Formats: sequence, C-alpha cells, structure tokens
Amino acid sequence: MIAAKYKEMLGAKSVIRELSEYATARGKEIGYENVFDYSLGNPSVPAPESFKREMIRLLTECDSMAVHGYSPSLGIPSVKEKIAESLNKRFGMNYTGNHIFMTSGAAGAIAHAVRCVTVPGDEVLTFAPFFPEYHPYIDLTGARLKVVPADTGSFQINFECFEEMLTEKVMAVLINTPNNPSGVVYTKETLEKLAEIMTEKAEKYGHEIYLISDEPYREILFAGVEEVYVSKFYDHTLSCYSYSKSLSIPGERIGYIAVNPACKEAETIVNMCGQISRGIGHNCPTSIIQLAAAEVAYETSDLSVYETNMNILYKELTNLGFTCVKPGGTFYIFPKALEEDAKAFCQKAKKYDLILVPGDSFECPGYFRMAYCIDTEKVERSLPALRKFVETEY
Amino acid sequence: MIAAKYKEMLGAKSVIRELSEYATARGKEIGYENVFDYSLGNPSVPAPESFKREMIRLLTECDSMAVHGYSPSLGIPSVKEKIAESLNKRFGMNYTGNHIFMTSGAAGAIAHAVRCVTVPGDEVLTFAPFFPEYHPYIDLTGARLKVVPADTGSFQINFECFEEMLTEKVMAVLINTPNNPSGVVYTKETLEKLAEIMTEKAEKYGHEIYLISDEPYREILFAGVEEVYVSKFYDHTLSCYSYSKSLSIPGERIGYIAVNPACKEAETIVNMCGQISRGIGHNCPTSIIQLAAAEVAYETSDLSVYETNMNILYKELTNLGFTCVKPGGTFYIFPKALEEDAKAFCQKAKKYDLILVPGDSFECPGYFRMAYCIDTEKVERSLPALRKFVETEY
Repeated sequence: MIAAKYKEMLGAKSVIRELSEYATARGKEIGYENVFDYSLGNPSVPAPESFKREMIRLLTECDSMAVHGYSPSLGIPSVKEKIAESLNKRFGMNYTGNHIFMTSGAAGAIAHAVRCVTVPGDEVLTFAPFFPEYHPYIDLTGARLKVVPADTGSFQINFECFEEMLTEKVMAVLINTPNNPSGVVYTKETLEKLAEIMTEKAEKYGHEIYLISDEPYREILFAGVEEVYVSKFYDHTLSCYSYSKSLSIPGERIGYIAVNPACKEAETIVNMCGQISRGIGHNCPTSIIQLAAAEVAYETSDLSVYETNMNILYKELTNLGFTCVKPGGTFYIFPKALEEDAKAFCQKAKKYDLILVPGDSFECPGYFRMAYCIDTEKVERSLPALRKFVETEY
Repeated sequence: MIAAKYKEMLGAKSVIRELSEYATARGKEIGYENVFDYSLGNPSVPAPESFKREMIRLLTECDSMAVHGYSPSLGIPSVKEKIAESLNKRFGMNYTGNHIFMTSGAAGAIAHAVRCVTVPGDEVLTFAPFFPEYHPYIDLTGARLKVVPADTGSFQINFECFEEMLTEKVMAVLINTPNNPSGVVYTKETLEKLAEIMTEKAEKYGHEIYLISDEPYREILFAGVEEVYVSKFYDHTLSCYSYSKSLSIPGERIGYIAVNPACKEAETIVNMCGQISRGIGHNCPTSIIQLAAAEVAYETSDLSVYETNMNILYKELTNLGFTCVKPGGTFYIFPKALEEDAKAFCQKAKKYDLILVPGDSFECPGYFRMAYCIDTEKVERSLPALRKFVETEY
C-alpha cells in the first residue's frame, strides 16, 4: 500500500507556487511582461562567465572518467579543500577539507544537518518569518519544528520568546541570515546574544545545542551592512550553504555543510553525513558541478541588480506609507500590509497585476513578501500599479 | 547530542572500499598498472561524445537561467517526456512524462521508491547475491530488508524460498537484473514466474506488492542474451534507472523512476516522490545533466570492452576449473571460490596482486566477484597471475 503520509501531503498546495502559476496563466492573457510577478525567489541574473568557462574546460580538456566519475561520498577532496581555504581567507576560520561535506544545495545540507544532531521527537527552533520549506525539511526527519514568534519591529530575534522556548527538548536552532522573507541581516549584537543564551542553556541542560545556519544569501549584502559569519559567534555551528544565489545556478543543486572545527566531534559529524546519505539516496552532488563551483569559489554573478531594485521599492513603499524594515541583503522585502488580513491584501493586489505573497506563508501574518529578483525595468513599470492599488483600495 | 544511529555506522567499513584502498596503496609500491584491481564497479570507458557536445551546446547556446534555473520538483517536463518516449519506443510501453520522476541516480530512485510503497516495519524482499548498499538504502527508511537465499546453480531465483518468505508483511520486492555481482540476466521465464507468484500473493493478502526493479546495467547486455524489460511482466513495477553505466557518468548522479502506467495510482506515486524529496533534501537532479542526458537517451558509451573482458575471463576461469555462471551482462563475474571460505581465498589472491571481492559482501559466501571494468590489456596481463595463484595455492 502506498505510504499515506506522503499521499496526504499532496493535498496542501504551496501558496507561493499557486501564485506563481496564477502569474504564468495571467501572463498568457495579457503578456507576461505586464504581470508584476513578485512571487518566486528565482535568481534573475546569469551565472558568471568564469563558471561557464570552467565547465567547458572540464568537458574539453580533462579526462572523462575523472570529471564524470564517482565522487567520494563526502565530496571531492580537492573541492572540499578549496572551499575550506576560501572560507578561511574570507572569514578568518580554520576549516580543513575534513570539515566540509558537499551537498545538493542548502536543502540537502539542512536534511543532513538535522539528522546529524537530532533524533525523532527532538525539537528544532526557528524564528518567524521563515522559509516555508523548513516544515517538510524538519518534520520528515521526525524532529519537531517549533517557531519563535517574530520580532516585527526589526526582524532580528525576539529573545524573550526564544529563551522561554529553548527548553531541554531543543537540540538545534535553525537560523537564516540574510533572511528570506524579511531581507534582514542579523547584527553582530543579535548573534552574540543568541550565542550567549545557547551556551548558557546548553550548560544548564548538559547537552550541546547546535546552531544550523542556513546561508544561501550570504553574498547578497547591501551597502552599509556589516558582513558577519555566523559560525564565528558559536562553536557548535553547522553552516549550510548553497551556490544557488551567489552563482545563479539553483538548478545545479550544489552546496555544502561547513562544521566549525571547534565543534565537539566536528569531523565525526562530517563522516556521519556520509552515512546519512546512504539512507536518503543523496550520494553526493554532481561531480562536474562540484569541480566547477570550487574553482570559482571567490566569485559571484553580478548581484548589483538586487540592491538597485531594493532601493527603488523601499523608497516607493515608504513613500506610499508602508511600514517596512529596510533589507540588508537577499532579494526580498517584507512590508506590513495595509490591512490586518495580508491574504485579503494580496488578493486585492492581483486586480492590479501585482503578485505578492502573504506573510502567512512565512508564519508572520499581516505582512507580505516581494521577491524582486526581476529586471529593474519591470520593477519601475510596477510602481504606477502599486500606487494605483494603494490609492484605490486604501 | 549527535545521532547515535549514524555514528555507530561509522565503525563498519565496506570490504569493497577496503580492498580498493589496499589496491591503491599497493599501486604506490609496485605501480598501479601491476595491481590487478578487480574491486570496484567504476565504468572504465569515457562518456559518449554526443553527451559532451550537448553539455557544451547547453552552456554556450542557451540562456543561463533556463539551463541552470530551478527544475520543477518532479523533473524538467521536456526531459520526462523524452525519457517516456524512448522507453515506449524501445520496450513497447505507454509511459507519459507524468510516469517519470527524475532522481539522483539509482540510489535516489530506490530511496524514493521504497518510501512510496512501504511504511516503517514493512518488509522488503531481495535476492542473494545483491549490492551491499541495499542494506542502508532500505534499513534507513525504517522498512526491513529480508534476503532470499541464492539459487547458486544459475543465479536466477530460488522460488521455493521466495514463496515461503513472501508473507503478508512484504510490501515490496527488490530485484536487480542484469545483476551485480553475478552478471546474470533474469530470463523471461524467471520474470513470468516472479510476476505470477507476486500477483497470487497480492490477491491473497488483499494488498499490492510492488516490484522495485533496479536497472543500472540494463544497457550492458552480451551476445545471445534476450533483452527483457521487467515492467512488461508486472503492472506494479517501479523501474529505477541510472545513466551511470550506460553513459559512463556515475558522478553526475542522474536517473529516474518510471512507474508502470498500469500500476494503481501510478501518477500519484510520482507526485508522492516530489513530497518525499522535500523531506530528504533531494530536490531534483542537476538541471544541466537532466537536459543533456535526455538528449542522448538513445545512446550509450562504447560498452563493448566489457563483453571482450568477460569472454577472456570466463574462458580462463573455466579452463582453470572454476565453477562459474556465464554473465549475460554488466561488468561483473561471480565464480565459486576454490575453498569454502571465500574471504581466505581472496586474502591469498592478494599475494599475486589480484584484488577479488569475497561473496560474503553480497550475502553469498563461497563465491567471489571480479569487476572487469578495466582495460582489456590489463585483464590479459592478469591471466598469468591468476594461473599462478590457482596452481600454487590449490
């Protein structure tokens, strides 16, 4: 008999996916260029030329069996070393290749990290607003995701609630900075306080509490925002990275877990990831993409369009009277809706061909997300629609 | 605390991997060309030129965001359709793209298939000798792998034991033909009988029993062997395929599940795979590899070397007095050892720089596997060593 657990999941459609499908369908009626589709977080800039060049070099100059052959289960050693080195240089860490586990993007990284540091029944804490896929990522491991309510003033951390919810059952805390959907970057002060509380509670409970840091937007940082590397603040950190956004290659499913060398049994955790893979059929990311991504580890796509778009939108939104924390990175902005029910607000926006995602999807009702990974020209063309929407409806 | 279940797995080292490491170390002493390393099932021929050409075309002629963008969770629709069409043409099936789920190789396919059709505690039957990774693949889903003893006369199926073990608790049967390690291809008669028994028992128990067919060696078939497509014999078949061997790209992790359209809820099963992916962090194989593999779906690497090698080895082994079923495909042969303890036999072979894998690893003691995916020249050079080994030790 087919497994009821997964069959039942088929009923619940993702609101983001539904909105994106609506935008595509509407595009067929009026031309997609006339639909201001802010629904999906899909990079809108090409991969860097260097990535393409390296792929072609691997295909034309290297031995087929070496490029396309099996990768060791923890990842290709030279790739892991290059990644360790690039992190050490940029962030003053002291990783070796043995602290890196190659994964199929951040989703794969989180899938392994959670299985490493929890057993079924354990709790994992995260903070609203958060990426809705955290629910299946965590729930299907058997651990239970608990959500700390948002600090809606700054979208930093609601520490009062956090301390209360950080009970003995919590084995891991999952954060995402720069954040989807708020665009906010945690400050040094936030990370220091987070580390302090976790250290204190870990001591009190007599077991480690791991920090799983989901960092796919690490390289999309805007002017004036301090770059902070989460793992610097807390030893028991598993950094989950994806090249999807920095290199604009989300379909190529490439990322890694970097385990802080000061973490107890750091190398054992990496080795355990190799065992977890055997059970979930992961067996390493694609070898050619591992090789190419490591070669361009210091580069990114031209990500400047996201900051341009953010500035245009932030200015217009505040002019129109929206309450809105200015994003420090990512390609998202998360303003407060103009009525309590963000779903109703986003529904009305559709009349103006504005596709906005209600904050309910991120467990933060009353807000809405705009993913501005679209052409600047289109962002500018959307402003009159945004104005008309606000002036007519509110 | 880190999960004990995975930490404990670290102790048990794979015999095949240990032998391969030994071969590499010995190669450093005497030159790897002098080590007759028959340990690993790694393709020894390059990927077809057409695959390389298609990869370069995708990189140079196509839009970066289209090639490297997110793939839909079930796989890229055009890719799924091309695969369905190629299977229909070759095997007279009637798949549509909706019956295909793209996976990271056969490992990914089995991980999804087992989760689809079992729940923890259910039993999955397989047949000795079998690929040792089936244990973690199945065990870590929570289902239990039960092994039907080998039919050592022909390495077809021991039907007497199978019927006895096919109890009400069994929800899936996992087969692998052409087989690793025996090299044997199931005959039409074997598959007919298997289907007959499964149909009868499914009716008796009032629940479906799924056939999970692991087919990475489907295209490595030798002269005189009838090509049989497993799914033709049994409606409730999930065919798990990998391009690793046919295109010699094992590191690129590309494969699929093809659910027989006559299977009850066939399309639901495919959709469920998309949900399972969310929990195991799979999120689709690499998009560029999906696109390139589908484009060359009718082609293979030049696989003829495997048959050449098999003929040389089979002739020599039988001349030397080994009992050995002639392989019908793959790049493996599985002769009976010359003493009861195959581990001792393989240990002695090391003195002659022959790296052989004891059948114990495949739950079929008394036999040994040779993976002859190496250059023919080296196979020929290994014959004197083989002769000397047998004549000196037995």
